[in-house]
Amino acid sequence: STAPSHMDLHNQGRSKFMEFPYVSAPHKKLMVDLVSTVENRLDSQLFPCTLPHDVQSYHNQNGTSHASLHIRSGHKSSPIDFVLGSWIHCELPTGGALNITSLSTYLNSSTDAPNFLIEIIRNSPTSLIVILDLPPRKDLVLIPDYLKTFYEDTKLEAQRQLLEKVPEVKPYFSSSLYIRSVVSPTAIMVRIEAEAVERLEEIIEDYVDPISKEVLRIWLEQCACVKREVNDEAEKNYLQKRDKFVKTKTIEIDLASSLPRLFGPETADRVMAAVKKYFSS
Amino acid sequence: STAPSHMDLHNQGRSKFMEFPYVSAPHKKLMVDLVSTVENRLDSQLFPCTLPHDVQSYHNQNGTSHASLHIRSGHKSSPIDFVLGSWIHCELPTGGALNITSLSTYLNSSTDAPNFLIEIIRNSPTSLIVILDLPPRKDLVLIPDYLKTFYEDTKLEAQRQLLEKVPEVKPYFSSSLYIRSVVSPTAIMVRIEAEAVERLEEIIEDYVDPISKEVLRIWLEQCACVKREVNDEAEKNYLQKRDKFVKTKTIEIDLASSLPRLFGPETADRVMAAVKKYFSS
Repeated sequence: STAPSHMDLHNQGRSKFMEFPYVSAPHKKLMVDLVSTVENRLDSQLFPCTLPHDVQSYHNQNGTSHASLHIRSGHKSSPIDFVLGSWIHCELPTGGALNITSLSTYLNSSTDAPNFLIEIIRNSPTSLIVILDLPPRKDLVLIPDYLKTFYEDTKLEAQRQLLEKVPEVKPYFSSSLYIRSVVSPTAIMVRIEAEAVERLEEIIEDYVDPISKEVLRIWLEQCACVKREVNDEAEKNYLQKRDKFVKTKTIEIDLASSLPRLFGPETADRVMAAVKKYFSS
Repeated sequence: STAPSHMDLHNQGRSKFMEFPYVSAPHKKLMVDLVSTVENRLDSQLFPCTLPHDVQSYHNQNGTSHASLHIRSGHKSSPIDFVLGSWIHCELPTGGALNITSLSTYLNSSTDAPNFLIEIIRNSPTSLIVILDLPPRKDLVLIPDYLKTFYEDTKLEAQRQLLEKVPEVKPYFSSSLYIRSVVSPTAIMVRIEAEAVERLEEIIEDYVDPISKEVLRIWLEQCACVKREVNDEAEKNYLQKRDKFVKTKTIEIDLASSLPRLFGPETADRVMAAVKKYFSS
């Protein structure tokens, strides 16, 4: 048979994904550590990545844009819906390059705990945008207990303040008001503008790295691995509806607008179709 | 009869309130203009202020703290629940003074349109905190149409960006995660730190004043005076529940913690009891 086995597909795709070939050493180390931490903790609950080869890794016709995508669904008995890792590299007409790396985890409606999200956007050698958050899955205004449990008691605000104190760090306002609405009140959304490349790498190593790892640790220990009772059918339906909304809008905002431009319509359609299977269920 | 008439109570309280006796000329002008604009536009829908004299104006025993409160309920047929204006002045042990002025409007469940809120906190001669927003009354994540109608189509973000561009303006993060959750994605929450008093007054005149008036204009034209169909009983109940939650938490955070400290327990109890009548219905 010429069809690769699921494990081959997974292993080949994973090793390409984990290369993070276009980003700096501290940036790569951070992403590899985050992905490995999630895998080590949740491996027994996750299926291998079964995306087709040409979705796990894809590029545009003249080879100036290159991307990798790695999605693993959770087992039926797991609270994990799926884990999504990706990187995108695009040469810019101005000579530089844009590099985006991300890791996001989605829980299913057996729990109402928040999701995890990190997105690091390097749009020049000396500047970086970081989005790091546990996006809530309920209306925090109506459910103060949820706010207390996941955002006050976990001391996420202390992590946000640690990064805020770095002089090169400025708040970042997403141009999408929807993205601003989806994140939590302790979301880290910052733009880091350093005077030199070396300083930016230092900020990644000394601040972005440990803070991201602490937020992921909080998510793993207080969200992913804690039993939450969602027995009520109405609440389950609410979570499913809200989750689906967030996922659909996120794809629209993150991918539908940029993929065709960066990779051409054919590749964009192929990747979107594969991703939608996870995001619309 | 020695009991003052409702109109006397209202007129005496209103003229004391509108004095804003402790803040700078540009700060006072802004507040008087905002209150007058709301009154001129909505006067026919509002009852006089019927708060007792000693709640419309109150102070602490040694006279170092002084405050004024002005609340007008809306008529039954009006979409206005109530309009609340206030100022608080406290001499600080360090020698300076803290001055807070605010105007907020609450709509009732005949409409789902956003409320209006401005709070200006002068905590030193050269520094100011401004909170200016149309707080949403629904979960924006679940109802993108609401986000589009009231936040995207109204171009509120342009007002936020106008103020953000002033060099002395820095983002302000409320210490209350609940307050951060209640505001909209276009909320203006800033701290302004000027080098000199004159410059701060200039920023109030040139930026805070016109921007606040534009946000109030948007609220009056696109929120307070636009018919929104809320016919569904379930939706009415949802709005009532969420509104009540927000009001209860806002009182807790804004008043319950500070009034006893600033005015002593007796005055704090009297004021809280009067305010709660409006906030818990």
